Amino acid sequence: MQHKHLLGLENYPAEDIQTIIDTAFSFREILDRPIKKVPSLQGKTIVNLFFENSTRTRISFELAQKRLSADTVNFSASSSSLQKGETFKDTVQNIEAMKIDAVVMRHPAPGAPLHLTEHIDSIVINAGDGTHEHPTQAILDMTSLYEKFGYLKGLKIGIVGDIFHSRVALSNIHGLKTMGAEVTLCGPATLIPPYAEELGVNVNYNLDEVIEWADALNVLRIQRERMGGGLLPSVREYRNLFGITPERLANHKKELVIMHPGPMNRGVEIDSAVADSNQAIILDQVLNGVASRMAILYLLLGGKYEEGKN
Amino acid sequence: MQHKHLLGLENYPAEDIQTIIDTAFSFREILDRPIKKVPSLQGKTIVNLFFENSTRTRISFELAQKRLSADTVNFSASSSSLQKGETFKDTVQNIEAMKIDAVVMRHPAPGAPLHLTEHIDSIVINAGDGTHEHPTQAILDMTSLYEKFGYLKGLKIGIVGDIFHSRVALSNIHGLKTMGAEVTLCGPATLIPPYAEELGVNVNYNLDEVIEWADALNVLRIQRERMGGGLLPSVREYRNLFGITPERLANHKKELVIMHPGPMNRGVEIDSAVADSNQAIILDQVLNGVASRMAILYLLLGGKYEEGKN
Amino acid sequence: MQHKHLLGLENYPAEDIQTIIDTAFSFREILDRPIKKVPSLQGKTIVNLFFENSTRTRISFELAQKRLSADTVNFSASSSSLQKGETFKDTVQNIEAMKIDAVVMRHPAPGAPLHLTEHIDSIVINAGDGTHEHPTQAILDMTSLYEKFGYLKGLKIGIVGDIFHSRVALSNIHGLKTMGAEVTLCGPATLIPPYAEELGVNVNYNLDEVIEWADALNVLRIQRERMGGGLLPSVREYRNLFGITPERLANHKKELVIMHPGPMNRGVEIDSAVADSNQAIILDQVLNGVASRMAILYLLLGGKYEEGKN
Repeated sequence: MQHKHLLGLENYPAEDIQTIIDTAFSFREILDRPIKKVPSLQGKTIVNLFFENSTRTRISFELAQKRLSADTVNFSASSSSLQKGETFKDTVQNIEAMKIDAVVMRHPAPGAPLHLTEHIDSIVINAGDGTHEHPTQAILDMTSLYEKFGYLKGLKIGIVGDIFHSRVALSNIHGLKTMGAEVTLCGPATLIPPYAEELGVNVNYNLDEVIEWADALNVLRIQRERMGGGLLPSVREYRNLFGITPERLANHKKELVIMHPGPMNRGVEIDSAVADSNQAIILDQVLNGVASRMAILYLLLGGKYEEGKN
Repeated sequence: MQHKHLLGLENYPAEDIQTIIDTAFSFREILDRPIKKVPSLQGKTIVNLFFENSTRTRISFELAQKRLSADTVNFSASSSSLQKGETFKDTVQNIEAMKIDAVVMRHPAPGAPLHLTEHIDSIVINAGDGTHEHPTQAILDMTSLYEKFGYLKGLKIGIVGDIFHSRVALSNIHGLKTMGAEVTLCGPATLIPPYAEELGVNVNYNLDEVIEWADALNVLRIQRERMGGGLLPSVREYRNLFGITPERLANHKKELVIMHPGPMNRGVEIDSAVADSNQAIILDQVLNGVASRMAILYLLLGGKYEEGKN
Repeated sequence: MQHKHLLGLENYPAEDIQTIIDTAFSFREILDRPIKKVPSLQGKTIVNLFFENSTRTRISFELAQKRLSADTVNFSASSSSLQKGETFKDTVQNIEAMKIDAVVMRHPAPGAPLHLTEHIDSIVINAGDGTHEHPTQAILDMTSLYEKFGYLKGLKIGIVGDIFHSRVALSNIHGLKTMGAEVTLCGPATLIPPYAEELGVNVNYNLDEVIEWADALNVLRIQRERMGGGLLPSVREYRNLFGITPERLANHKKELVIMHPGPMNRGVEIDSAVADSNQAIILDQVLNGVASRMAILYLLLGGKYEEGKN
């Protein structure tokens, strides 16, 4: 691994992404065993520093840590305690002074994990920083694509929804481009970032054309609270234009893999008949999330994976 | 064990209840040792999914899990996130996709754990679902009675208080009837369910007669917020009619065992002089709670109990 | 250890404080290793019973417990559930009935941990009780002084700030006096307790004189919410009179060690240029906090420390 931290996938080396994916598959095997635990990170301490509410990502990381036999401490801060940069710095330096090995951090401010690396020596893993990046989500998405297709290079991926506010989208774009996949963004024009072409991706406002082109769609969650505020049309109109419905898919005679980072707004950006169908790999993404996070923790914390031992 | 899950004691087999009680006594011995831990469930992952506030039951389950060497993850959801059935389903499928072995669930809606079994493959243990059942509480109550008397068949148990809203009462009724005990319900007429006789139990509104008849009383917590709402008389009147006071007990020249599932409203449904007396086995119930939950987890998750190893 | 519990440092034996400090240094060595874990308290259960919000102290104790391989259960209670003494007693007896080995307790009421020892048999460790004591903080402070100077006897310590409301100050006074150090209190006259001289300490309202005299300063956090209420002057005036600024220190040509229990109000009671300088040992205090708490838990719970084994 060429980087000490995992802050984002922008400029992250392709060979390291591949190593993580390969290692994730090793851990996937372990997750299929009756005893889903290895002693790789015994005696290591990891702090989950969540400044934003999260259930899925926090549990996914916590399971990854426990299945590697690490000790974990959870720290949930309301964003109110963050208003002073000094307080933030003191909080993290304090935690680091207790001799921890890694911090998994979610924070509403873009760049907070990078900022953290300037103040502490521990390994920092970004679990989502505002609208910036969510690299472990993109790695689990790529692991899931790799599992499904066996390759990433040349794969055609459509990302559908509110690209502008999505750290999932941005990390996927960086990761997929690095791995040689092609990416097309699709969504309301107000929610496609103006710098999309600089990212080396295509933009297409016509979902049917994107479906015709793509091997897989990554369908983003629509924040209902953004509806009707000028950026997004109504729920009904959004669903008409960008909802992944069985009717729309039936118009295209092709295999198409459907992904969603969750949680889903069923009936808005995706219909249940699609989400629960065989072409959706949404629950595989969840399992690959644990395996990918095990791989990332294992590789960055330098544990030695010992096959078979409990 | 004939059932994969433990959702309630209605129609639960007598031989399985007896197996749980017998196994609970094995774990009770372990809890008396300096090292209160066995490796039975090492490498198993259990999620505590609590959609209702709980301190005692959650800690009891967590201790049971840790003393069996399982990995545990706590998930506390405010009931607000439950308003959509789909969200609930997605939440639990998501957690299950991470390859967990069992879910311990508390939920305000009767039937929620059963509903859960329709969506996931993991073992589900009901830790209380609305006014429906609280089977692990009834099993710890029966374990405590068994410890005290050495048998359940033919034992005479009075359950006193708000039967209508009590999942503890309902699970006790099913379990005790299955094990051959006799049950008499006692409380304000408004709080005795109209279908009591269909449950095969007696009803007697006269507490003194119930005391005269019973071997043990299970005294339910009175919800103060229900007082004065038409269903319950005032605190003073309730205490006069149904409170377990030392004066009332002194009128009956007999041994009587007193139980309470906690938390107690001292001075309302039970007086301190009774709760803290030798005839009360309330704290034994608490310890048997950990042992019974260890037994249930051990038996359902199929761990092999290895005597002596730490 | 002559006492079963650690409730405060008033009348705590000097030899036991020295044993804890010596043991803390053994654990400090372990914290410098790649595997920071020993099996000393395997199979022991410790409950962290926090009736007041706390991040640092709770995480410090939790890390200490996990690095000793104990099982830990966290219990956070809002103070609202405490309004009845009976409820408190029932809560703790309930938890103890589950067979735990120790309770670490933080509580807003002075004397609550002592009260707890009257109701349960487990070992009780006071993690801060109102304005009374915070003995583990004082022990980590003394461990840090011992690390810096190699002795405590005859050391001159100034404690600066709101002494009146500070459990950190009171525990330090008791501990330092017992260990033969000299203590001078410094702060606004309204915040120096009237019984200071009975405690065997000096009082001096002139910070420059205290700096001239002292080997080390322990700088207390100023509660901003107390500002302007008659007890404290404005922030600016407080900083002028009692703030530890680089300018003030530059007027004194001497080595001076600076301590702070955290969290700091940078720019109020201490300036960043001091807090982040080499003369501050604030982050050493944090690390010694984990080591000291490991020592306390290890000694009180009677674990056997096994060098080298993981």
